[in-house]
Amino acid sequence: MIGKTGIAVRSIRRAPEAAVAQLAKFGVATIHEAMGRTGLLAPYMRPIYPGARVCGTAITALGHPGDNWMLHVAAEMLQPGDVVVFALSSPDDHGFFGDLLATSFRARGGLGLIIDAGVRDISELQQMNFPVWSKAVHAKGTIKATVGSVNTPVVCAGALVNPGDVIVGDDDGVVVVPAAKAAEVAQASREREAKETSTRARLKSGELGLDIYSMRDKLKAAGLVYYDHVDDVK
Amino acid sequence: MIGKTGIAVRSIRRAPEAAVAQLAKFGVATIHEAMGRTGLLAPYMRPIYPGARVCGTAITALGHPGDNWMLHVAAEMLQPGDVVVFALSSPDDHGFFGDLLATSFRARGGLGLIIDAGVRDISELQQMNFPVWSKAVHAKGTIKATVGSVNTPVVCAGALVNPGDVIVGDDDGVVVVPAAKAAEVAQASREREAKETSTRARLKSGELGLDIYSMRDKLKAAGLVYYDHVDDVK
Amino acid sequence: MIGKTGIAVRSIRRAPEAAVAQLAKFGVATIHEAMGRTGLLAPYMRPIYPGARVCGTAITALGHPGDNWMLHVAAEMLQPGDVVVFALSSPDDHGFFGDLLATSFRARGGLGLIIDAGVRDISELQQMNFPVWSKAVHAKGTIKATVGSVNTPVVCAGALVNPGDVIVGDDDGVVVVPAAKAAEVAQASREREAKETSTRARLKSGELGLDIYSMRDKLKAAGLVYYDHVDDVK
Amino acid sequence: MIGKTGIAVRSIRRAPEAAVAQLAKFGVATIHEAMGRTGLLAPYMRPIYPGARVCGTAITALGHPGDNWMLHVAAEMLQPGDVVVFALSSPDDHGFFGDLLATSFRARGGLGLIIDAGVRDISELQQMNFPVWSKAVHAKGTIKATVGSVNTPVVCAGALVNPGDVIVGDDDGVVVVPAAKAAEVAQASREREAKETSTRARLKSGELGLDIYSMRDKLKAAGLVYYDHVDDVK
Amino acid sequence: MIGKTGIAVRSIRRAPEAAVAQLAKFGVATIHEAMGRTGLLAPYMRPIYPGARVCGTAITALGHPGDNWMLHVAAEMLQPGDVVVFALSSPDDHGFFGDLLATSFRARGGLGLIIDAGVRDISELQQMNFPVWSKAVHAKGTIKATVGSVNTPVVCAGALVNPGDVIVGDDDGVVVVPAAKAAEVAQASREREAKETSTRARLKSGELGLDIYSMRDKLKAAGLVYYDHVDDVK
Amino acid sequence: MIGKTGIAVRSIRRAPEAAVAQLAKFGVATIHEAMGRTGLLAPYMRPIYPGARVCGTAITALGHPGDNWMLHVAAEMLQPGDVVVFALSSPDDHGFFGDLLATSFRARGGLGLIIDAGVRDISELQQMNFPVWSKAVHAKGTIKATVGSVNTPVVCAGALVNPGDVIVGDDDGVVVVPAAKAAEVAQASREREAKETSTRARLKSGELGLDIYSMRDKLKAAGLVYYDHVDDVK
Repeated sequence: MIGKTGIAVRSIRRAPEAAVAQLAKFGVATIHEAMGRTGLLAPYMRPIYPGARVCGTAITALGHPGDNWMLHVAAEMLQPGDVVVFALSSPDDHGFFGDLLATSFRARGGLGLIIDAGVRDISELQQMNFPVWSKAVHAKGTIKATVGSVNTPVVCAGALVNPGDVIVGDDDGVVVVPAAKAAEVAQASREREAKETSTRARLKSGELGLDIYSMRDKLKAAGLVYYDHVDDVK
Repeated sequence: MIGKTGIAVRSIRRAPEAAVAQLAKFGVATIHEAMGRTGLLAPYMRPIYPGARVCGTAITALGHPGDNWMLHVAAEMLQPGDVVVFALSSPDDHGFFGDLLATSFRARGGLGLIIDAGVRDISELQQMNFPVWSKAVHAKGTIKATVGSVNTPVVCAGALVNPGDVIVGDDDGVVVVPAAKAAEVAQASREREAKETSTRARLKSGELGLDIYSMRDKLKAAGLVYYDHVDDVK
Repeated sequence: MIGKTGIAVRSIRRAPEAAVAQLAKFGVATIHEAMGRTGLLAPYMRPIYPGARVCGTAITALGHPGDNWMLHVAAEMLQPGDVVVFALSSPDDHGFFGDLLATSFRARGGLGLIIDAGVRDISELQQMNFPVWSKAVHAKGTIKATVGSVNTPVVCAGALVNPGDVIVGDDDGVVVVPAAKAAEVAQASREREAKETSTRARLKSGELGLDIYSMRDKLKAAGLVYYDHVDDVK
Repeated sequence: MIGKTGIAVRSIRRAPEAAVAQLAKFGVATIHEAMGRTGLLAPYMRPIYPGARVCGTAITALGHPGDNWMLHVAAEMLQPGDVVVFALSSPDDHGFFGDLLATSFRARGGLGLIIDAGVRDISELQQMNFPVWSKAVHAKGTIKATVGSVNTPVVCAGALVNPGDVIVGDDDGVVVVPAAKAAEVAQASREREAKETSTRARLKSGELGLDIYSMRDKLKAAGLVYYDHVDDVK
Repeated sequence: MIGKTGIAVRSIRRAPEAAVAQLAKFGVATIHEAMGRTGLLAPYMRPIYPGARVCGTAITALGHPGDNWMLHVAAEMLQPGDVVVFALSSPDDHGFFGDLLATSFRARGGLGLIIDAGVRDISELQQMNFPVWSKAVHAKGTIKATVGSVNTPVVCAGALVNPGDVIVGDDDGVVVVPAAKAAEVAQASREREAKETSTRARLKSGELGLDIYSMRDKLKAAGLVYYDHVDDVK
Repeated sequence: MIGKTGIAVRSIRRAPEAAVAQLAKFGVATIHEAMGRTGLLAPYMRPIYPGARVCGTAITALGHPGDNWMLHVAAEMLQPGDVVVFALSSPDDHGFFGDLLATSFRARGGLGLIIDAGVRDISELQQMNFPVWSKAVHAKGTIKATVGSVNTPVVCAGALVNPGDVIVGDDDGVVVVPAAKAAEVAQASREREAKETSTRARLKSGELGLDIYSMRDKLKAAGLVYYDHVDDVK
């Protein structure tokens, strides 16, 4: 159904609320590590202001270059705690979204937007504290002429997103957690963070990663040779 | 005369002061919409610090890669309320402009700079609150060897700019308003903003764009079909 | 030795402390000018937060795409006042470095990182006030499988860096000063800055660069013709 | 299962041979149109020589930057008529594939390669007439250190590809046809091509698309106004 | 009128036939030099096959991302010897043009296409020997929903093009010659080429550019110092 | 001395002729492998026509954006068997080199050009069979105003090149072999090629790389699990 247009789905199965609440505590880097280094959107997806952060369930939409019609249909599907994920049928940088749509999204309970295109009204969005991750900032407006789809699976910035998946965004980027795995990933994130806390304390005291992670023998086996001076290298 | 070099024009016809003062109240996105979605510079033109904003009349300059000589000639032409628009004969990222030239521009009444190349002394420019929109930040200095032109029409970041046109820049980018249309565009911007204010209130109350803009029939005609569940899609 | 792997050098010859302390007073643009416009890294190297600033001696490392092993070896070589410069054997955007490694670097006296790849934990690094210049921000984690080198000469973002060279980074980018030239460049920077101070005062008073730098005759000789009105141009 | 590693699947369900044979007759542009304008890989995927062409069933593989190990596992899975589709866990341009692997692929019945990374031995591959679509050409070699997956679903150059799907590549790019839709898409392609043949004849005789497609009234309704001379435009 | 939509102009003033015929004899590099190094489109505009070459008068069109409607209107305006120049209101890579439209253009006397977007049916266009310069190759099809303009001034790939201007394209790119200057530029091109012929003979005999162009004194004055060995450099 | 300007060195130490002759027999990919995967220039350096090939000793030059003066000085230094390597002080795409300079280079014994910028007269260069690797093709001409250097070490497309080093270019890119290592690298290339010949024969017979390189145990140890069907994956 990827790429198919003309479909708007009303009911979706969202990830369990408790798992979403858990995931909200962790950063994007931690979560993607806890998922075996999967789920990241492409790094060109950047927050429109530093410190932006979101965690919610995905309303997906697929639109066309220069046409933001499906964002209005997506607004209709929003429930409190949702994040809109907008994919495009072909690369484009128009400004699809501004403070009016953000006002509408927020009024319906929407928490933020992930969009593989451009946005505008950046200052106003930051004043509203409405988080957006986008490929571009562009004042250029859009039309409403061609239908796409809402709440079908989409490929957004290189990642497959299904409606109801958990979307987490922070200064490091955006990660998608499949709804069915949300609880398991939250648990794995918690464990990873606990481990990192103890490692951080050891590193802070001056201990080296080489020793904490027992890397010295592996480095030697892999061929690293230590020299006292560069002139000793033959 | 586009691209012709060796010309420096002293007197230009600036957009009417009243119209410039009016346009200063609106954002780049609003103004470009009020002009029928024309006049934007390419979206790679970004402010060097968040919150930068400018509205003034254009002193245009055309220079060559790695050569900022014409910015000194442009300084001579500045009157209070002007903004320098610097185009290049070929793409380049050198740092053409820093705090010394900004000091000179400001002393002559210059309000800001739009440059299809690089700038430097970013921290100092932000401390001075001197707004610049550029393609790049680069410390690399320039020479003064080849003449270009000042106050001839230029193509800057994909947009045609004539001397005396109104230049507005904000966090969303840069728009150019032809001098002869400044009053008309200011009026259209005012009307657009008034309309948006009322729409914003309705959206804030939870009303949908689909209803406010009467989109439902058009969506149906364009082929959008609603389904309750994804499994209902054949 | 450029590009050779399997080498970790313990002792390097650092630039004299006094010269490093002097260079810490100047901006990247000033220093690169004082070096005859050499030494800049490519302008795609950007600080991960505005206002980041560093000046220290280089510990160099060469690693492979998606593999941050050598950063752990680099940590071992750090002495107070050092900055790690990390080059890659092939272009890559993984997130090689985050708050754990920053904690380790700082514990060993490391002042910052220059990396021709991606970093993550941006918010945490900013909170720590740990300055990093990178090509990308990416949450994607790395492995530790293949050895590179530490403290051999590297080409990082287009610039040759030798261990012990002085690295200065600010909002304008990154410059490398060869260790043997550090004192001479610091002196030249001081002279340049003194000259700029007096020029700035003259520009501030409204004097033009055209007159301060005696450019008028040169412009004429180079073919620039002044016209009162554009209609005078034949 | 997208992005999961450590899995190599031996048996896959390939699209029906007859449908693949039918699709081999059509161009990429025609097929993607027949699928409702879906299925294209990103346009940065280019053939390594002009005139390259392939149509076969997908063996999918997921690998890591600088590591071509999974291409060797993919070779094991090849049956006559297959095309390998290689996705990466993170963007990379290494030369993953050259004439040795092409020799192996061909010996096993492989028809070509679609790879979201770099290739090398371009001259030799062209002499062998072994078609490859890639993001880059790069001589840089790879290691074999980390496992990915073979014959799991992958996102390659922005498109979802399942093992057994039909892959068609020509000078215009690459399109993926889901195995279950192969017959239906082949039929739709045939119909489209038939229609184009008759349109081509009319256009060749000088008839205009405006008349053949009855566009004149729609253009007028959409606001296009004809003027005899540019001076007539008010 | 730049950027204004809803206008289709029937009659335009073409450059004189004799001048166009003269310009057809020279390469893009020669012509742009003869115009004082002006008139080039951006270098990302590449021919879709090596050896493509065109010289004709411009029919201009302005369209929107993903919408090729105006190419059909442009076809109606074509007279023998014309070249269509297609600009976009915002950057886009769709495949706007293929062998059907090429058939139509040729039937009306059109010689080629310059398009700041994508094209498809590359193999067929090459077989037809129909020259196109484009920003991208992409199989992705377009819609016909929004009007732009035909035969108004456009900015295409950074260059201002007026209807009736002369367009020359070859392997080096595309240059536009204003209609009013066509004869003068043709003459200057002829002179430049004559001079190059004699220079080429001298260079072929082993004489150096340093001597032919009397550069030795200028190099010395500009600060170039010759050393016999690198060790002589202090 | 990297980046220093104002220096032209007449005598350089070239790699031994016999070693250059040996290296001429191998491809770029083979040579870079034989050097431990070092020495490649960035992959954006592409031949201007397919099948271009060169092997010779480097005359290095450093120039400035839009200024090709140093190519004329480089011509003076050419001896039969040399290849000019041209680096820039800042990124640029001008057309620095065309058929006139190629005529001069060839007359002096020059075999080709590697240039981290643009070239023009592509058709003529291909007719002359004069091989060039460049970052861009651009008709835009250059000036002769500022001195750079000739025969000093340069960083070209990310690689350090010393005068006299061996430069090999083919369809896969460009590799630089330090003069002192030329003989050793030629020998290692010969051995590598011999080994590949025998591997190629085994692969051609249908044997798998998995078996030839004894990868099966390593894959298992690294965590790859084989499944007969995708449904077997838990």
